[in-house]
Amino acid sequence: MNFSEQLKDKITHIEGILSEYLPPEEGKQKTVIEAMNYSITAGGKRLRPMLMEETFTMFGGEGDVIKPFMAAIEMIHTYSLVHDDLPALDNDEYRRGKKTTHAVFGEAMGILAGDALLNYAFEVASTAFDIELSPKVAKALQVLSSKSGIYGMIGGQIADIESEGKKVGIDTIEFIHRLKCGALIESSMLIGAILAGASEQEQTLIEQIGADVGYAFQIQDDILDMTSSTEVLGKPVGSDSKNEKSTYVSLKGLEQAKADVAEISARAIDTLDSLPYENPFLKDLINMLINREK
Amino acid sequence: MNFSEQLKDKITHIEGILSEYLPPEEGKQKTVIEAMNYSITAGGKRLRPMLMEETFTMFGGEGDVIKPFMAAIEMIHTYSLVHDDLPALDNDEYRRGKKTTHAVFGEAMGILAGDALLNYAFEVASTAFDIELSPKVAKALQVLSSKSGIYGMIGGQIADIESEGKKVGIDTIEFIHRLKCGALIESSMLIGAILAGASEQEQTLIEQIGADVGYAFQIQDDILDMTSSTEVLGKPVGSDSKNEKSTYVSLKGLEQAKADVAEISARAIDTLDSLPYENPFLKDLINMLINREK
Repeated sequence: MNFSEQLKDKITHIEGILSEYLPPEEGKQKTVIEAMNYSITAGGKRLRPMLMEETFTMFGGEGDVIKPFMAAIEMIHTYSLVHDDLPALDNDEYRRGKKTTHAVFGEAMGILAGDALLNYAFEVASTAFDIELSPKVAKALQVLSSKSGIYGMIGGQIADIESEGKKVGIDTIEFIHRLKCGALIESSMLIGAILAGASEQEQTLIEQIGADVGYAFQIQDDILDMTSSTEVLGKPVGSDSKNEKSTYVSLKGLEQAKADVAEISARAIDTLDSLPYENPFLKDLINMLINREK
Repeated sequence: MNFSEQLKDKITHIEGILSEYLPPEEGKQKTVIEAMNYSITAGGKRLRPMLMEETFTMFGGEGDVIKPFMAAIEMIHTYSLVHDDLPALDNDEYRRGKKTTHAVFGEAMGILAGDALLNYAFEVASTAFDIELSPKVAKALQVLSSKSGIYGMIGGQIADIESEGKKVGIDTIEFIHRLKCGALIESSMLIGAILAGASEQEQTLIEQIGADVGYAFQIQDDILDMTSSTEVLGKPVGSDSKNEKSTYVSLKGLEQAKADVAEISARAIDTLDSLPYENPFLKDLINMLINREK
C-alpha cells in the first residue's frame, strides 16, 4: 500500500473511533448534539488523533487507553474551529468547503456547541480511568488540558485576536503559531508517548518534535494562504490579509518562509530518526503535513 | 458566631482558595487572564464550592484534594454565566450589579475568556492527581465533566435557549431547571461526598439532595424574578418575561411555586437528616438558599 492509501485507511479507522465516542442525536439536547456531530464529521485530516496514535504505536503502546484521548483531542480541535469561525471572531461562513457550524445552526448554537465539544472532550478523556487508573493516564489528562488552555492553544488564539489590524513582530507570530496550532500537535504526540510508557527524556524529544511540526505546519498554512486558490484550499484565500493580519510570510517573505519550513521540518525528522524506534508512516505523515499543497 | 457571620467567613475562605488557583495576569495572554479573573472575582455567593466543601467535611473528608475541585466548579459556573450573557444568548450588560465580561472586554474576549475558564477548570481539577491518584479522584473528575456537559448544565442551557419565545410545558421547565442550575449543585455535593469516601448509597442520597436543592433554588429564582426589585436583585427584574420565556411561575402560578419550593426543600432537608452525619451549617445554608429573598 502506498502512503495515500495508508492515509485513507487510517482516516477511516480514526473516524470509526470518533463515531464510537460521539453522543447519539436524541433527547432535548438533540439540536446541540447535531451541531457537535456536524462540526466533527465535517471532515478534516484527523491529523491530531493520527499523530497521537502513530506516536503511541511507535513507542510500542498497546490497548484501548489511547482511544478516548484520540477522540478528545479531535473534539478540542473542532471546538476551537467552531468558536474561531464565529461572527465576533473570524466571521467565516465556510470551512473545508462546507458551511460553518454557526452558519447552519445560528450563533447561539455555535457558541454552545463549541462549549459542549470542549466539555465533552474531558468527559470522554476521563473515561480512560475506567480502562487504566495510572500515573500515565493522569499525566496524559494534565497534558491534554494544559496544552489546550491559556498556556497553550487558547493563549495563541488570544494573541492572534489581539494582533489583528496591528503591526506585530515575528516573535508574536512565532508565539501565535507555536501555541494556536503547535500546542495541540505537541499535545497529540506527547500524549501518545506518555500513554505508551516512553521515558521522560523521550517525552521531551517528542514534545520538541511536535512543537517543530506544529510550527512548520502553520508557516506552511501562511504560505498556502498566499499562494493557493480557494478551490484547492476549501476556504477563502487571502483571508489573513482580508483580516489585516501580519503573517509569517508578510514579515519574512515567501522564500525565507519556505526555507524556514524546510529547516524546521528537517530538525523534527532528524530528532525522530535519533530515537531507537521506527514508524515509517509517522515520518511520511510529518513530511506530507509540512510539504502539503492544500 | 451566627449564620451570616459564618457565611461571610466561609466566603472569604473560599475566595482565598480561588485566588490560589487563578492564573497571574501576565504574558501575551494578559487580557484574557484579566477577563477570566474579572469574571471570577465579580462576586457571587460561592455557593457551589461551599456546598462541595461542606458536604466533604460532613462526611469526614480531610486534606487538600477538595481544593482544586472547589476552584474548578466555580470556574465552570463562571464560564457558563460569561457565555450566557453574550449578545447571541441572553445579551445582558449587567450581572450582580457589575458590567458583564463581554460588556467590558468585548465580545470576542467574552467568548474566549469563557472557553479559557472552562478549560482551566479541567487543568486545575486534574492537578488533584498530584495530591492523590485514586479511584475517588478519577470519579470526581468524571462527575465534574459529565454534570457540566450536554447531559448536565449545557443540556439545560440548550433547552432553555430553544424554549425562548415558545410555549413550553412544565416538563421542559423542570428539565431546564434540573440541568441548567441543578446539575452543578448536584455535582458540587456529589464530588464532596465522593472525595470524602462516602459509600455508593450515601452518594446516591447526596445526589438526590443536590438535585432537589438545585431545583428549588431555580424555582425560587423564577419567583424572585417576578417579585423582587432590580435594586435588591442586582439584575433587571422581569428579564425572563422580557425574553418571552415560560417560567415555573408563569406556568404554575406564584402560590403553587412557593408551595413546591417548600415541599422540595423539605424533602432535601429530610434526606439530609436521615444521614448519620451532622453539619448544621450545611443545613442552614440549604435553608437560606431556598428561602432567600435575593
